This record gives sequence, C-alpha cells and structure tokens, in this order.
Amino acid sequence: MPQIQVANWYKAIVAYDGTDFQGFQVQTSDRTVQGTLEAALTKIAKYPIRVIGAGRTDAGVHAVGQVISFKLPWRHTLDDLSKALNVNLPPEVVIAQLTKVAGNFHPRFDALSRQYRYTVLNQPVRDVFKRRYATLVSGPIDVALMQQASLYLLGRHDFTSFGRPPQGDNAVRMVTQASWSTNGTEIIFEITANAFLYRMVRNIVGTLLQVGLRQLEGDKIKNILLAKDRSQAGVPASPNGLCLMSVNY
Amino acid sequence: MPQIQVANWYKAIVAYDGTDFQGFQVQTSDRTVQGTLEAALTKIAKYPIRVIGAGRTDAGVHAVGQVISFKLPWRHTLDDLSKALNVNLPPEVVIAQLTKVAGNFHPRFDALSRQYRYTVLNQPVRDVFKRRYATLVSGPIDVALMQQASLYLLGRHDFTSFGRPPQGDNAVRMVTQASWSTNGTEIIFEITANAFLYRMVRNIVGTLLQVGLRQLEGDKIKNILLAKDRSQAGVPASPNGLCLMSVNY
Repeated sequence: MPQIQVANWYKAIVAYDGTDFQGFQVQTSDRTVQGTLEAALTKIAKYPIRVIGAGRTDAGVHAVGQVISFKLPWRHTLDDLSKALNVNLPPEVVIAQLTKVAGNFHPRFDALSRQYRYTVLNQPVRDVFKRRYATLVSGPIDVALMQQASLYLLGRHDFTSFGRPPQGDNAVRMVTQASWSTNGTEIIFEITANAFLYRMVRNIVGTLLQVGLRQLEGDKIKNILLAKDRSQAGVPASPNGLCLMSVNY
Repeated sequence: MPQIQVANWYKAIVAYDGTDFQGFQVQTSDRTVQGTLEAALTKIAKYPIRVIGAGRTDAGVHAVGQVISFKLPWRHTLDDLSKALNVNLPPEVVIAQLTKVAGNFHPRFDALSRQYRYTVLNQPVRDVFKRRYATLVSGPIDVALMQQASLYLLGRHDFTSFGRPPQGDNAVRMVTQASWSTNGTEIIFEITANAFLYRMVRNIVGTLLQVGLRQLEGDKIKNILLAKDRSQAGVPASPNGLCLMSVNY
C-alpha cells in the first residue's frame, strides 16, 4: 500500500523582480511568476500544484510582499519546504516567509488592504543600477503639488477613470493612503487601498506626474475622478517603478 | 570642399551594470562594455572610434567610475555630446561625466589609484533586487576578523599570490586602503591601490571571506602574501559583488 501523505495549505510571502516576467498571472505560453511558482511546487510534489495569488501584478511590476497560497503534501519542516522551494525557483523569485494556514484562507478574498510603492528617479541621466526598479523622469517635479492633488483620491470613490474592475465587479475602492516622499533623487509614492482596479496605480501615478510636471492643474484630479471616464486620466506610468509592498489580512 | 572638423580628445566617467557583458575589454565576438561604447561613438562620428579604458573589469563586474578617453570630431556642446552618447548607449551603460582633455591624457597610464568596492549580502535567503550587485553569503561572518586580516595587505607588496600581472610587468602593487564596513545585512569591502593585478580584488575577497567564515586563520593572509604563489589563496569571490568605484589622477 502507498504511504498516505496528508496535504496541508500554506501561505507564502513572495518577492520578485518582475522585469523578465509577463506579469504574475499564469498564461499559456509566456513566462509568469505564478507559472514559475507552480512549476517549482509541482516539481516538489511530483503532481500539478495550483497557486492562488493575492494580486495580479502587470508585466514588469515587482513585489516585495505578494501573498500566495497552495496545498501541498510535505512531511518535513516549514523551513525545509522554504529552502526546497527557493532552490527550485529562479534567482529573481524568492519565498520570503512561509506559514501553514487553514484550508479556507484565500489570499485575494481575505485581503483587507494592499500597499503599492511607485519609485520615480528624478535626475538628468539614468542610473544603471536602479533602472529596473525606478522610472526616470528628468524634468523638475513639484512634489508638493502632487501631494496636494493626491488628497482627492483618499476615501471611498468610483475609480472608473483610473482603471478597469474585474468583470461583474464595480469600480468603487477605498483608498486609505496616498503619500509622496523623497529620498535623494528618488520620489516615492505609496498608496494603500482595500483593493485596486486593473492598472489603477500606474494610471494614478501617470496622471499625478503630469501635475508634478505642471502639465495639469492639481484640482483636475477631482474632475477626472468625478467624470468616471477612463479617457480623462493621463497615460499609465511605466511598470518598472511599481512594486507590490504588502497585502494585509 | 568638405568641411574640416577638428577632432578633440575627451575623458568620460562611465557607469555600467556589468551583468550582461563579457567584461570591459573589446573582444571579437562577445558583448563588451568597450565594444558597446565604441559602437555608440562610431555611430556618432560615422567612422571607427577607439576607446581607451582605465581598467579592464571582468565579466559580470560593475562600474560607477570607469574612466575612458576617445578622440572625436564634435561641433556642438559637451552636454550635447553626452546626451547623444547616452541616447545611443543601452540602458545598462551611461556616461556620467564628460570633459575635454589634452591629447596626451591616458586613462590607464596616468591613473594614480583605483578604488573597488565589494558587496556581500549576509542573510539567510537571497534578495531578488540586490542579486545582480551583491554576493549572498548566508553563514555567520566575523567582520572584525576580516578587518584585522586585511591590515596585512596595506603597503607595497608583491601580490603574486592574489593575481596575475600583465605580461612583462611585475606583481608589486601599493595598497592604501583595505576596509570592511556593514550596512544592514550588507558587508562592504573597499580597497584602493595604485593598480590591481588580474582578479586581485576577487581573490583577496574570496580569501578574506574564508577568514570571516572561520575557515582560515587571519594570520595566514600574511603567509599567503609572502608565499608569492597563486595556489595559496582562496577561490575568487563571484564577480557580481564587485564594482569599480573610481579612478584617481
């Protein structure tokens, strides 16, 4: 008789450099983070394992705190599983933390909020070491104007102008943080919401950067939001500056 | 009659992410930093331009302050030339500073000293964002032991045990700085010398890490140095942690 192995549910915090991935969500042909995680788990389990993720980051977007769950038979310690996974993952993906969870835990539906960070590099020429993780904007940027305009985003709003909801869902989201700060030549935007629409952070940053570059008046953010019209907002900021920082439960 | 353009000599400080290059020095087939710089200059000049570099960094080694010189006809401003070059260079190479120099300036022969930095990441698991620029060493490292052992390197010595001189040259070099410091989980080694032998910094770091990991007694550094025998030193540390910081004239 074969030995019976009881499968447990696990929750993992995953970090990745998204530069060379076509986003998080698994696709038939392209290299994705989810597909890479499933391949590593499948190799360990020796049968197909599915991964559930908290957020579907775009191609080129990074994560420090993506959260996933999966069900796996494993007879050794949590630490051993973490090491086995990291050995089977490529250098640009890492399991930062691993815990057992109840089978009814769902990374996406149970999340209370998500925090994203967007990094702008504001200097005349590119930085060869930061180019993968920050977006170069060389013109003078007024951070105070962007901060002022960001206040319109706080609270519960219909964010149709800044992104697309999943099919069957509405576009109402609750933003609890939208703050700009500087660190040397880096200008950093941090935004927290209960959930985000597709491309919402990049569309918000792209539009706020127009404000910072004095191409758009800060008050217009309020009008764009009220218009509930996706053609009103600016072009999305590049994916490379964006990073999913944490998912909170 | 064709217009006569007087060619001038230029000195540039160049930064690069060496991960995807087969080193600095031009080769017939592989992608090199020098080859990439020469291609950009040749495109601007419309005839072949050669680049002289201060130091021949290995495959995978980075630079913040590589120095090059080249002769080019250019009728516009220095700033225009810098911009034209950066537009024609790939994202992982950038001209950080550009000045006119006398024709007798030589980046390698005129250099008084060079400074390199080696970054070790001392934590249990890899960092997906630092992996290109730091070498992961997970075991406990005694930085004080490495600092103590590094003192044997200071001064004028024959460094045969730690590297190979260019053909026809001796292995005597003058080391004026060899210091370890920490920054969070990063352990950083900075070394300055009048010049370096081939693989000298990586061989020194690889051997000092053995001291830090208590695999080698610190006093042995003195014996290895005096042995003038390349088989005595440890294996070279990986290239990704190494960066040419500056060349001084």
